[in-house]
Amino acid sequence: MRIVVLAGGIGGARFLQGVRAWAENRPGTPEITAIVNTADDVTLHGLRICTDLDSVMYTLGGGHDEDRGWGRVGETWAVKDELAEYGAEPTWFGLGDKDIATHLVRTRMLDAGYRLSAVTEALCARWKPGVRLLPMTDDRVETHVVLADELDPDAGGAGVRRRAVHFQEWWVRYRAGLKADRFVQVGVEDAKPAPGVLEAIAAADLILFAPSNPVVSIDTILAVPGIKAALAAAPAKVVGVSPIIGGAPVRGMAEKCLPVVGVEVSAAGVGAHYGARAYGGLLDGWLVDTTDAGAVLFGADVRAVPLWMTDPPTTAHIVAEAAAIAGLPRD
Amino acid sequence: MRIVVLAGGIGGARFLQGVRAWAENRPGTPEITAIVNTADDVTLHGLRICTDLDSVMYTLGGGHDEDRGWGRVGETWAVKDELAEYGAEPTWFGLGDKDIATHLVRTRMLDAGYRLSAVTEALCARWKPGVRLLPMTDDRVETHVVLADELDPDAGGAGVRRRAVHFQEWWVRYRAGLKADRFVQVGVEDAKPAPGVLEAIAAADLILFAPSNPVVSIDTILAVPGIKAALAAAPAKVVGVSPIIGGAPVRGMAEKCLPVVGVEVSAAGVGAHYGARAYGGLLDGWLVDTTDAGAVLFGADVRAVPLWMTDPPTTAHIVAEAAAIAGLPRD
Repeated sequence: MRIVVLAGGIGGARFLQGVRAWAENRPGTPEITAIVNTADDVTLHGLRICTDLDSVMYTLGGGHDEDRGWGRVGETWAVKDELAEYGAEPTWFGLGDKDIATHLVRTRMLDAGYRLSAVTEALCARWKPGVRLLPMTDDRVETHVVLADELDPDAGGAGVRRRAVHFQEWWVRYRAGLKADRFVQVGVEDAKPAPGVLEAIAAADLILFAPSNPVVSIDTILAVPGIKAALAAAPAKVVGVSPIIGGAPVRGMAEKCLPVVGVEVSAAGVGAHYGARAYGGLLDGWLVDTTDAGAVLFGADVRAVPLWMTDPPTTAHIVAEAAAIAGLPRD
Repeated sequence: MRIVVLAGGIGGARFLQGVRAWAENRPGTPEITAIVNTADDVTLHGLRICTDLDSVMYTLGGGHDEDRGWGRVGETWAVKDELAEYGAEPTWFGLGDKDIATHLVRTRMLDAGYRLSAVTEALCARWKPGVRLLPMTDDRVETHVVLADELDPDAGGAGVRRRAVHFQEWWVRYRAGLKADRFVQVGVEDAKPAPGVLEAIAAADLILFAPSNPVVSIDTILAVPGIKAALAAAPAKVVGVSPIIGGAPVRGMAEKCLPVVGVEVSAAGVGAHYGARAYGGLLDGWLVDTTDAGAVLFGADVRAVPLWMTDPPTTAHIVAEAAAIAGLPRD
């Protein structure tokens, strides 16, 4: 059983815990490949930080902070405090000491010429996530947020200005509180899927969209040239899991992103955004929460089950339902 | 009163505490310039580490660990432990979390194109050492240790091999326990004195050699083209303070280095190594410990006082004696 999951960070990580738990209880040796969003990646203090890859790696490797929801368990903050003492900007990003070690190893390897996919494999040699983690691309792609026009503070109230900030700045520093005009995936047009991505999609028995942020996680993966076409041509069924339950995101702040791209914050809205494969979209199946049982996606098999990922066994039940939509046995 | 001090790391830092204490108790506003060895600098885990500059900066800025003798007070080691978990080499260098913040700021600025002297000035804006810290050069110079021939482990005991290691590896990893054939200051021939170095020497009222390692600290400063000539032409008196007391180093492992360059481990030996300015050497005065009161350096004024730098006031007395040799009032 070869399973491919398109995933963002924390929500993707929790979903993958369920995929792994479900697959482990099935006959045969499962091969799970996660194609992870890298457009949230950012370079701060000279360190290359891959938030989504790290969230997945730490979570599946058992090194994540379950209570805080992100980063490493038992994390300390000595370096961050010291950087602030030097006045080194930015200070708004939560750069923990343990986390920094990951970024140091990664940055050093990237500087030495290794590709991000090779670096990720090397880091996973320690974490043993039980899932093959592939960055969506080895090329540098970064989501920037073009903000809505603001009054220009330098123009005496007379002019307007437009500026763009890195997604992390918009998300972490401003808590998505600045009005966004649009998202731009800088570099994505020239990006190539990382080695193994297209092959994994082509060879999959089941392809899942994790309930990650549709706009800045899943859509950025889909924006890498070649990935959409590979999904369209894939023999496996493609089943999405809604990140919206009853009009609010399962976690994160997807409700801040969907309106920017004109998508309704609802299970039906996100389903329509992905579209049914039968009608030129991506999905064969769409799994929504029981709250959203009335959601419709013409051309796709829509089913409703409880979607709260409270723990890996519960999440495994969600995955079992997604598998069932794809015509696979639940267990 | 303009004082220039040639200094290495920890011994240099302690000596500079005394210079500052002495100068603060004199009339007028002293200007102290430390020309600091940078040939111990090393890049580890992608971080540019300037051990001597940092030792001086932390010590004069009050951030050093007095008990351990090096690094930051209240230091923690989370990053180092994590790097080891990744198997990231080397593991033998004591890279503390607080210390890493310094290296991150430095590395980022160097990568952005700032010179080491500008970076040092920026870091000192936080530490306010009360002394102007100048790297001996902005160019990359690194002391490597050419080891004595070893049996080649790949040749079945039949052949010998010669290898060189970075000074820090020899010093920290092997505790200077591998037999050294010679030291090589890689890059020094093409190095230029950092901005301000030659000007400070020319404008000085007093020039001091700290009791630092003569071979791998002071000699490397002197090896930067232009510095020896500037000292020879300087109007100020040049007074050295012996790093050897009764045949053993004040601190550090100078006794491991001096024999490699054929210098006797004694106050007289080091004095002769520097030489008297009157006879083509560097020193007008040579301050030795009372234990070594019989030491002679023809052509230089040799005086003996207790040289143990137990605390800044005590060290200030040593500096006062050095000033007296130069014909300046002790206070």
